[in-house]
Amino acid sequence: MFENLEYKLNKLKANRAFELLVVSVIILAALLAGARTYDINSSALRLLSVLDVLITVFFVVEISLRFMADKDKRRFFKNGWNIFDTVIVLASLVPMDSSEMVIVGRLLRIFRVLRMVSMIPELRVLLNSLMRALPQLGYVVLLMFIIFYIYAAIGSTMFSAINPELWGDISVSLLTLFRVMTFEDWTDVMYETMEVHPLSWIYYLSFIFLTAFAFLNMVIGIVVNVIDEESRREREAENENEPTIADLQVEIQEIKKLLIERK
Amino acid sequence: MFENLEYKLNKLKANRAFELLVVSVIILAALLAGARTYDINSSALRLLSVLDVLITVFFVVEISLRFMADKDKRRFFKNGWNIFDTVIVLASLVPMDSSEMVIVGRLLRIFRVLRMVSMIPELRVLLNSLMRALPQLGYVVLLMFIIFYIYAAIGSTMFSAINPELWGDISVSLLTLFRVMTFEDWTDVMYETMEVHPLSWIYYLSFIFLTAFAFLNMVIGIVVNVIDEESRREREAENENEPTIADLQVEIQEIKKLLIERK
Amino acid sequence: MFENLEYKLNKLKANRAFELLVVSVIILAALLAGARTYDINSSALRLLSVLDVLITVFFVVEISLRFMADKDKRRFFKNGWNIFDTVIVLASLVPMDSSEMVIVGRLLRIFRVLRMVSMIPELRVLLNSLMRALPQLGYVVLLMFIIFYIYAAIGSTMFSAINPELWGDISVSLLTLFRVMTFEDWTDVMYETMEVHPLSWIYYLSFIFLTAFAFLNMVIGIVVNVIDEESRREREAENENEPTIADLQVEIQEIKKLLIERK
Amino acid sequence: MFENLEYKLNKLKANRAFELLVVSVIILAALLAGARTYDINSSALRLLSVLDVLITVFFVVEISLRFMADKDKRRFFKNGWNIFDTVIVLASLVPMDSSEMVIVGRLLRIFRVLRMVSMIPELRVLLNSLMRALPQLGYVVLLMFIIFYIYAAIGSTMFSAINPELWGDISVSLLTLFRVMTFEDWTDVMYETMEVHPLSWIYYLSFIFLTAFAFLNMVIGIVVNVIDEESRREREAENENEPTIADLQVEIQEIKKLLIERK
Repeated sequence: MFENLEYKLNKLKANRAFELLVVSVIILAALLAGARTYDINSSALRLLSVLDVLITVFFVVEISLRFMADKDKRRFFKNGWNIFDTVIVLASLVPMDSSEMVIVGRLLRIFRVLRMVSMIPELRVLLNSLMRALPQLGYVVLLMFIIFYIYAAIGSTMFSAINPELWGDISVSLLTLFRVMTFEDWTDVMYETMEVHPLSWIYYLSFIFLTAFAFLNMVIGIVVNVIDEESRREREAENENEPTIADLQVEIQEIKKLLIERK
Repeated sequence: MFENLEYKLNKLKANRAFELLVVSVIILAALLAGARTYDINSSALRLLSVLDVLITVFFVVEISLRFMADKDKRRFFKNGWNIFDTVIVLASLVPMDSSEMVIVGRLLRIFRVLRMVSMIPELRVLLNSLMRALPQLGYVVLLMFIIFYIYAAIGSTMFSAINPELWGDISVSLLTLFRVMTFEDWTDVMYETMEVHPLSWIYYLSFIFLTAFAFLNMVIGIVVNVIDEESRREREAENENEPTIADLQVEIQEIKKLLIERK
Repeated sequence: MFENLEYKLNKLKANRAFELLVVSVIILAALLAGARTYDINSSALRLLSVLDVLITVFFVVEISLRFMADKDKRRFFKNGWNIFDTVIVLASLVPMDSSEMVIVGRLLRIFRVLRMVSMIPELRVLLNSLMRALPQLGYVVLLMFIIFYIYAAIGSTMFSAINPELWGDISVSLLTLFRVMTFEDWTDVMYETMEVHPLSWIYYLSFIFLTAFAFLNMVIGIVVNVIDEESRREREAENENEPTIADLQVEIQEIKKLLIERK
Repeated sequence: MFENLEYKLNKLKANRAFELLVVSVIILAALLAGARTYDINSSALRLLSVLDVLITVFFVVEISLRFMADKDKRRFFKNGWNIFDTVIVLASLVPMDSSEMVIVGRLLRIFRVLRMVSMIPELRVLLNSLMRALPQLGYVVLLMFIIFYIYAAIGSTMFSAINPELWGDISVSLLTLFRVMTFEDWTDVMYETMEVHPLSWIYYLSFIFLTAFAFLNMVIGIVVNVIDEESRREREAENENEPTIADLQVEIQEIKKLLIERK
């Protein structure tokens, strides 16, 4: 009997209508999270609370079904997306009634929108490919951080007396340098320090050139890597179907042998 | 007799001089729309109104001729560009005399400049290729919207009390986040919330990194796709004219057979 | 005797030392143009004037020598760079003594720095390749201008009453839209019109998306074009040296014929 | 005995644990440089000073060991990274006790973080590849500088009376133009000069278009170069392992000869 249930649950899980229902409930949860940010009267608020309870119950039941449908219970928690879903659903069980938890509960409920990613396969593929691109960036990010750290240390050593809010310590300086990198009112920051140190434009311009150059190289590096991988995959796909020049050479050499033997 | 007219109209439609005339009238309509934005005296205004009537009449006549020139009247409205032209011309029939409709009429007349796109084949090709690039972006745009939505929900939950104009509800927050993504005075927004929540820089920096990373991947994805398609088309064009390695292999194997048979 | 002179001049023109001298004088002219922007006392100013006369004389003599060195006097003015040099040198003959011409004279002298481009072959090559990239952009630029024009016409129709300095007429609106496209304080412009038309954010966001999308496609178009051209040139260079698969096919078919004939 | 020491030192240098220790001390030195930017009490300051002395001693010993481990003492200083390390370590020997040298000493100590680059091979490779990309940029940078110089000379000639702080002389104008290129409040700069010279928008827009176009071409140039080099390296790697069409041709021609000879 239990196996029968498992089979039925698996059929349900693979059901297109069931998937659509789950996605619809996720969208409803997203709209709910959005609606709460508006000024609403108490009766609408009560409606939202009721809907929230219903959605929470639906998600708990859905995850339980998924878990029960899986034959190998251990494998269920080896799948990253299952853990992801379970954590998000469990986190949204935090009640929103007690006044102190209300913000935490609301914030945790917002993350239910992320279940959209685990439900739509195309988004999952996209996110996986984004993740794969990350390690390639590792050392460029480290190099950039070293540049940032050195400039921040210099900045807070030289300019902390001029404007403590921007250059007070190294963490504030890092934030200020990120601001300079995004070109956000960076000349205001520069003009301020240039009044005391007239040559400090060298500091800003060298920083902008260094980070822009490193950033550019990072982008180009990714583009070249992706194109390379693409062309390698393509060539391999070709090789499986089509003969190569090396294949031809083998056959031609066999012909030559035949001719020489007969001589 | 009627077929004779259809033939003459088709000849007119394909006439280079006629096309140039239409483009000239479109440019005139564009200049007219521009001229109306200047402070002009009433006599010039009357001239503009007369010209506008003439242009409107010209466009109606031109579209009618096009319709009459088409043998299959149904096919005419299956061509997207014909519908596009007809809608724009009909929309500019809205009168500009009654005071309340004057703005609407002027706005609708501005869209006549868009007929330039349907008249110049190169622009039509360009727009078509832009349109074809859109579906590829679908899922990245969805992913970006999910990121935006979650951050907007968090933002309006946490910061709405600090500055209701920027974080009042989720739609205002979405606009504020778009502003942060364009780096437009984003530090002012951040410094304001950092006074209440000192760690809120994490919110802004993580948002900027996530969107920048997703955007970068989108751009790279398009570049790689376009290059791939280009190289596939090229290879196919080659294959039609040139023999492949597989063709050679067939011939070499025939030679081998000949040699072995004779043995 | 005259031909002898021509020969000597040609030798001079091709002389490496002479080229270096010309480049040095151009750099001196550039430094002079820069020095004039500083507050300098009258004795230094007199020195600059003397140097300016010397440089002007040098350039006139140099261009004259070049002209005399050319055998075919007509061909001299068919070379774009020669015309470019001559115009720049002639323009800097405008005197700087009369008070009203002093600014014009100074501005024209600044363009002498451009002769650097015509003197250094690598820069000439670079500029030529930049020029060649321009026509490819033609239709994208036209499409962008149509987008700008329509939005400017809409903007000055809707917003001219709100802020005439930004939206007064269509030319001012075009400038404002360019500002919005560079993200320069674009939210200030938007918030101002949103107070009157709360939905005007649609206008700005759609404009930003349209122009960003068109710009992105332009960039990608250029990248793909350049890579294509590069790979075509490479393949052609290969084809000259290496046999193609088609060459092999011809030879293999000859072998087959030989074998069949002998049968 | 001395050779024995050299051998032991070389073994130490290649030791993974020793490398990790050096990297850890570099990170400690970085944290120390960061900690000094905070307001700290005198006892913590004394601790920092003690740690600084220990780190300095450690680095001096480490560099000495490296020098002694090298068999060919001259070759040691032919390796750029060794010189780099030695200079950084020697520079941080500047004492921080005398009040006037304290800033200089602190700044020089910050550069010890850069030793991270010389210690981690991947960062060294990355930096080398960045360096190799630089010479390609040479002439584009020169062209950009010429554009900047001419616009700066024009700007300070025309606008110096309007705002001496932005356009006072050519060096200030260069900085202002760089600001315009980063779109940082560039409209404020433009609106100010447009009040006196209404057509000065031409100056700004042409500058933005020229620099954006040159910059775009620079980026595209690098991308194409990198992809080209990559594909050349790939093709060469292929050629070593696989036979080429030319190899086949040689063999086919040998077969033809064999057949004809026998006829």
